[in-house]
Amino acid sequence: MAGTPLRVIPLGGLGEIGRNMMLLEYADDIIVIDVGLMFPEEEMLGVDLVIPDFTYLRENVHKLRAVFLTHGHEDHVGALPYFFREFACSVYGTRLTDGLIRLKLGEHRQLQKADLHVVKPGEVIDAGVFKVEFFSVAHSIPDACGLIIRTPLGPVVHTGDFKLDHTPVMDQHTDLIRLAQIGAEGCLLLMADSTYAEQEGYTPSEQLVGDALRNILVNAEHRVIIATFASLISRVQQVVDAAVFTGRKVFVTGRSMIDNVAMARQLGYLNAPEGVIVGVEEMRNTPHSKLVIVTTGSQGEPTSALTRMANADHRHVSIVEGDTVVLSATAIPGNEQAVYRNVDNLFRMGADVLYNRVSNIHVRGHASREELKIIQAVLQPEYFVPIHGEYRHLVVHSKLAESVGVPKGNAFVLTDGDVLEIDENEARQAGRVPASYVYVDGMGIGDVDQQILRDRAHLSTDGVVVVMVSVDKRTGHLERPPEILTRGFVDVEMNEDLLERSRRKVADQFKGADHYAEFGDINTKIRDALSKFLYDETRRRPMVLTVTVEV
Amino acid sequence: MAGTPLRVIPLGGLGEIGRNMMLLEYADDIIVIDVGLMFPEEEMLGVDLVIPDFTYLRENVHKLRAVFLTHGHEDHVGALPYFFREFACSVYGTRLTDGLIRLKLGEHRQLQKADLHVVKPGEVIDAGVFKVEFFSVAHSIPDACGLIIRTPLGPVVHTGDFKLDHTPVMDQHTDLIRLAQIGAEGCLLLMADSTYAEQEGYTPSEQLVGDALRNILVNAEHRVIIATFASLISRVQQVVDAAVFTGRKVFVTGRSMIDNVAMARQLGYLNAPEGVIVGVEEMRNTPHSKLVIVTTGSQGEPTSALTRMANADHRHVSIVEGDTVVLSATAIPGNEQAVYRNVDNLFRMGADVLYNRVSNIHVRGHASREELKIIQAVLQPEYFVPIHGEYRHLVVHSKLAESVGVPKGNAFVLTDGDVLEIDENEARQAGRVPASYVYVDGMGIGDVDQQILRDRAHLSTDGVVVVMVSVDKRTGHLERPPEILTRGFVDVEMNEDLLERSRRKVADQFKGADHYAEFGDINTKIRDALSKFLYDETRRRPMVLTVTVEV
Repeated sequence: MAGTPLRVIPLGGLGEIGRNMMLLEYADDIIVIDVGLMFPEEEMLGVDLVIPDFTYLRENVHKLRAVFLTHGHEDHVGALPYFFREFACSVYGTRLTDGLIRLKLGEHRQLQKADLHVVKPGEVIDAGVFKVEFFSVAHSIPDACGLIIRTPLGPVVHTGDFKLDHTPVMDQHTDLIRLAQIGAEGCLLLMADSTYAEQEGYTPSEQLVGDALRNILVNAEHRVIIATFASLISRVQQVVDAAVFTGRKVFVTGRSMIDNVAMARQLGYLNAPEGVIVGVEEMRNTPHSKLVIVTTGSQGEPTSALTRMANADHRHVSIVEGDTVVLSATAIPGNEQAVYRNVDNLFRMGADVLYNRVSNIHVRGHASREELKIIQAVLQPEYFVPIHGEYRHLVVHSKLAESVGVPKGNAFVLTDGDVLEIDENEARQAGRVPASYVYVDGMGIGDVDQQILRDRAHLSTDGVVVVMVSVDKRTGHLERPPEILTRGFVDVEMNEDLLERSRRKVADQFKGADHYAEFGDINTKIRDALSKFLYDETRRRPMVLTVTVEV
Repeated sequence: MAGTPLRVIPLGGLGEIGRNMMLLEYADDIIVIDVGLMFPEEEMLGVDLVIPDFTYLRENVHKLRAVFLTHGHEDHVGALPYFFREFACSVYGTRLTDGLIRLKLGEHRQLQKADLHVVKPGEVIDAGVFKVEFFSVAHSIPDACGLIIRTPLGPVVHTGDFKLDHTPVMDQHTDLIRLAQIGAEGCLLLMADSTYAEQEGYTPSEQLVGDALRNILVNAEHRVIIATFASLISRVQQVVDAAVFTGRKVFVTGRSMIDNVAMARQLGYLNAPEGVIVGVEEMRNTPHSKLVIVTTGSQGEPTSALTRMANADHRHVSIVEGDTVVLSATAIPGNEQAVYRNVDNLFRMGADVLYNRVSNIHVRGHASREELKIIQAVLQPEYFVPIHGEYRHLVVHSKLAESVGVPKGNAFVLTDGDVLEIDENEARQAGRVPASYVYVDGMGIGDVDQQILRDRAHLSTDGVVVVMVSVDKRTGHLERPPEILTRGFVDVEMNEDLLERSRRKVADQFKGADHYAEFGDINTKIRDALSKFLYDETRRRPMVLTVTVEV
């Protein structure tokens, strides 16, 4: 196979945040790393989720050997149910990742096509020509891993999402020793997490948060309510530890938090002494000073438990003066308005609210610049591809890599669909494969296109005006006055005059013709005339739709 | 007038960012401080601007004595053109503020009703029972002021927007000596800027930015393009100074930047030696290494000069490899996506892009917590009202005030419309006045209501489906097959089957009736049946509109 290149094909997560998915291809073998989803951006109106474009894999399905999952976050595993609608293959992940995707695939009735395998760090899996070894990384979910992938051309390292943390909560370190061994051996290609490539210095340790939460529980005279990500099991462990230390009981609320806590306890990722985590009844009988509540809703999700509390709409928890509410999370861009609406409402109800801007109660799960330099230092890769980030993250990460030793020109800023080919002599960009946004909207997968999104954007701005005309098909004359219906445009009752003049403007379009055929496209004529009239009158541009009935 | 209370009535800017407007009322006199606008939040679909609710002023127009403007930013003066559509009175502001609002009122043909007066810091204006003195503050626009308002009950201090800056660019300090004099005399009420009440420590000095910009111009080998706010004249001055130091010419682009630079030079707020600021021709003849371009577009505004450059669509400036682009601004919440899209595109074109996350090239214009404590310390007010901020900013600012000496219970967290009454003995909240969001959309002012916004939100999510049926009014039978028109819902060509079944579903609603009167509201019946059918088929909920023609 001399001369056969290794092909690196990102299908998602490069040039955007989320829907991470990477292919490695060599001759007749393809392996997949992560199959994640992305939450829609602002202009993707009405879209529920965005998943990677599987076209290339569809066309090369005979090469598909296995899927490897770095960890259980949605942006790395969330598109698996859509993947298994059309593909069937082995899936490898660590124990918690496996537990999470079993739940998810079960809900979508897609378990039968995924051949799931639990692996441990250090284990090596054969997949065609590739040999894949998992190694432990510190990240904001237990059991996170990166991958060392042996290829015919040399070892490739994929960091997954990671940071360095020398005092992590559950002893989950990034395995620098193993990485240094690969570095000593000679690393062909490094692909490393760029999410925080803009951030100077080091990401603080989880220990900092543990200390802060403990102080809050020690000092609060009344109840403490802590909202965080349901997958951030280590944070829940920190709360439980602080609760034990201060003699408080823990009540868990919010569906995904309840599910995750139950699964984490069952699998041994969350250790709580008997009697510390309590149900509704015991929570009700516990004085507020001896209580801490762990809840979902740190992102202001509309139906989450914390949002219900903030709206005085939670079944079991009513916020009272003296409560301390802790948002142990950062608002993800796009969620700020919802998060701060909750903060405002909780303040209005008399709670004291601690959030990231005023308190050190959250640290991020991604490596900052000094950590990224350390990874470069221990691996000293020949080639480098920054992964997981918007375009600017990838650019600054690639500059960072070149500044600490990656040979000039050997760092490649790829975006989704760009193919990188590496052979014995060199690496080069080699064309593209399809990598569109695939929108999931209701039951539709991939059927929402740019035209539909443009129409939704138009409708959202100035609403819709529907014009109905009945035309005598022999004479071409209006058979009755036009009807006009509007939504989202103007207040109809206050604008009867405008609507009356609009009807006349429509009727005017029929003047001077003797029979219908003379009009050409009467709908276009009506639409153009009415759009212009309405813009002149209101400086708004509603979408104008016309229906013509020939009688 | 013993017993007459001083009434503090915020009409905007308390509980939100923007549209700042405050009334002070005593017996038969009302003065207005600032008349600002707000840019619409995400859910205010299609809205152009939001202005304060003038209802209370309308009902008490005989009391209106004057408007005082703290500075020329849009969130403090932007609603004046709408104000002067219905009111007429004297307006007081410093010279640059006056220059900016003359431009604005002129554009709206509203100059004649505003009796404009230029004042200087230290000057005192009589307005009914009130005597109003302007004092200088450091902020991100020249000539910014706060107000000392003498009332029958004692002096009130309104800070406007401010920070402390001991090394400002144009010697524009916050006048701590004057404030300390009022503190010594006894300050009745302090109203202070809360925008940065969450931020620990001190806001850095403008000098920091000046040094950073100079270093960039010294080190860049090619052209440097600097985007900032058009009103941030001091930043432009820093660029001009650095250009002079490095022997570069300055080219200015972007309409509002050109206008502001022209006015600032004319009024003496921007000092540039002869020949430093150049036109298009000279710019074209200057080598890139001797050029710096100052431009609008730091917020990613779609038609701004920087966005045009990033889209290779600017008339005079084409980005080339080697260019350094500096975003000397912070992305205002809501603008991040547009700002970073520009950053990504500029990187793609080969420019080096420096932005706030990777470089110290912007400082904010608002005081951080330690500065807010100093203002409390020099004024030691009896009562305190935090202004300019979302609810949480007001809450944390009021806690800060109480922590440094405002008597417990004397700090009032008011939101728009809340009335605070202060008399010789106490202060208390005393009811509310109308303070709705007033939306400007096209030519409409205040006519867009919640129903219209809800309709736009519905339309934006899943589009619109229009059903047209012709009914024989004698028999109640369908006179022909129903017609269906959709936009923003599904791809019509790919879903002909769905549409055909939808038409049948509509036709089914006419079965079993012998004449028209039996249907009750046929439109409702069609809408409900079709909505349910489409949801079951697609899990989408388009807005369904029906038009019935009786023939």
